Amino acid sequence: MLKLPSRVKIREVGPRDGFQIEKEFIPTEAKIEIINALADAGVSDIEATAFVSPKAVPQLRDAAEVITKIHRNGAVYSALVPNFKGAQNAIAAGVDEIVVVISASDAHNQANVRRTVDESVADLDDIFSLAAEKSIPVICSAATAFGCPYQGDVPESDVMKLVDAYTSRSAAAVILADTTGMATPTRTADLVKRVKDRYPDLEIILHLHNNRGTAMSNLLVAMMAGATVFDTALGGMGGCPYVPQAAGNLPTEDVVFMLEDMGVGTGIDLESIIRASLRLEKIVGKTLPGQVMKSGPRDPKRAAELCGIIP
Amino acid sequence: MLKLPSRVKIREVGPRDGFQIEKEFIPTEAKIEIINALADAGVSDIEATAFVSPKAVPQLRDAAEVITKIHRNGAVYSALVPNFKGAQNAIAAGVDEIVVVISASDAHNQANVRRTVDESVADLDDIFSLAAEKSIPVICSAATAFGCPYQGDVPESDVMKLVDAYTSRSAAAVILADTTGMATPTRTADLVKRVKDRYPDLEIILHLHNNRGTAMSNLLVAMMAGATVFDTALGGMGGCPYVPQAAGNLPTEDVVFMLEDMGVGTGIDLESIIRASLRLEKIVGKTLPGQVMKSGPRDPKRAAELCGIIP
Repeated sequence: MLKLPSRVKIREVGPRDGFQIEKEFIPTEAKIEIINALADAGVSDIEATAFVSPKAVPQLRDAAEVITKIHRNGAVYSALVPNFKGAQNAIAAGVDEIVVVISASDAHNQANVRRTVDESVADLDDIFSLAAEKSIPVICSAATAFGCPYQGDVPESDVMKLVDAYTSRSAAAVILADTTGMATPTRTADLVKRVKDRYPDLEIILHLHNNRGTAMSNLLVAMMAGATVFDTALGGMGGCPYVPQAAGNLPTEDVVFMLEDMGVGTGIDLESIIRASLRLEKIVGKTLPGQVMKSGPRDPKRAAELCGIIP
Repeated sequence: MLKLPSRVKIREVGPRDGFQIEKEFIPTEAKIEIINALADAGVSDIEATAFVSPKAVPQLRDAAEVITKIHRNGAVYSALVPNFKGAQNAIAAGVDEIVVVISASDAHNQANVRRTVDESVADLDDIFSLAAEKSIPVICSAATAFGCPYQGDVPESDVMKLVDAYTSRSAAAVILADTTGMATPTRTADLVKRVKDRYPDLEIILHLHNNRGTAMSNLLVAMMAGATVFDTALGGMGGCPYVPQAAGNLPTEDVVFMLEDMGVGTGIDLESIIRASLRLEKIVGKTLPGQVMKSGPRDPKRAAELCGIIP
């Protein structure tokens, strides 16, 4: 009854979006262990870290070391870069792709980086030049594409203007990011459809936070509207530093469970990704939002063995 | 793009499904306060308690007192009854409807009530006779309709056999219950469609637990497949006594947020239901799974005032 693709791509963002907001510094070896476990489970694309100021984000001060020491076994490893210097460092460290972020909402962009959207867009040119020179694809994220915690609604024309700025600079893909979980299925389907109509060949990535419980439903309808790439985070790591009890990203293992059960291939092994998530919970020392690692796969024997579920 | 109804009915089950698994006895006055707050927020149907053995479920030993003392201001109040004695007590206390539950899975029914499905179905006749005599509608729940934590898959023929048993006894409505969160959107859409095809005039209620992160997506596709009644629980109360960290029911306020944002009317006021959920968290003394009460409505001013969100 549901029109679904036979296969989608999962972009794991936990090592960047999750580790950056942990209060304690996660040891470099633990970060590498998780990133390698993700790749071993079949995750093909991993946003492994961010090349940001060590003063601003000390949790990721080991970005270069992480990129240098992880296994490079065929997965595509990207890093978020906030500026030209970050792009230089990321490319020097050997990333496969870089990720840039600008908010569709001026209010949010000002609050985040004290620049207007237009100023941030202008800053992209040097980054794109460098990336082109080094043959490094640039993935471009439009934050607050579905709503902004400062201004509320974000006009679709503002989102499209930013998407236009990205595509005119030969973005490898555009991320529509629901930064604080304000999307619902109708908003998601509408925006995906409009961007797809305008740029039929553009790779659209959905980055969906679960602050209001709608993220998985948004993923489902985005997929029905033609999107085939999704950002997720192991265990549902990440989220809002200012709403610590709020849910973060879509948990990778929950997405794999749902998609594989519906016959949508992810290339990711469910049991391996559950094990990685259980290990992650031990590393961060707290309960994460992911549900499948708590209740296990459908098979009661496997749920018992993997997750200790004895009904 | 999405085919959605203009209006659905929310059946609140938190006061029964939630309070029954709390370790501490929730004071009767607090239960009544929450039930009244739900009705004041616009919830039209509330499963308020269960008439079960006070020894087996001491948390609900005040069932008759709750039913007697709540405001009766137009909402429909039901109670779960496990047997004939429970039905007698519920009706004597003055409930508007009773709810009976049998598992579609023999293994689950045996584990729960030490009876086969056929034995439990046979027990229904006395309950239905009593209810008919007193003109009390009987809502009939098919537990584990999408999977069983003991046997795994539950054949659709077993689910349909139980639905047949219910409809042949003039059930007022049938609940398809995903008791431990094993449904995914394709499974949900398929079963709703099959039951609707077989019984076009039957009121089908979906009771969706979120143990594997899929419940909201299941609600969405069930709605697209024609279902218009959903069980939810304030704050996402309830769930699995044997997987305490697992998510429970769909949080009422999260469902109201998503549906109203999509133009699907619920008759429930979002801000009032958020306030009720925040109050509930204080009463139960712990963080509940509901997300909207943590992040607030879309409007930043309302989110700040209701939920203290300062981005």
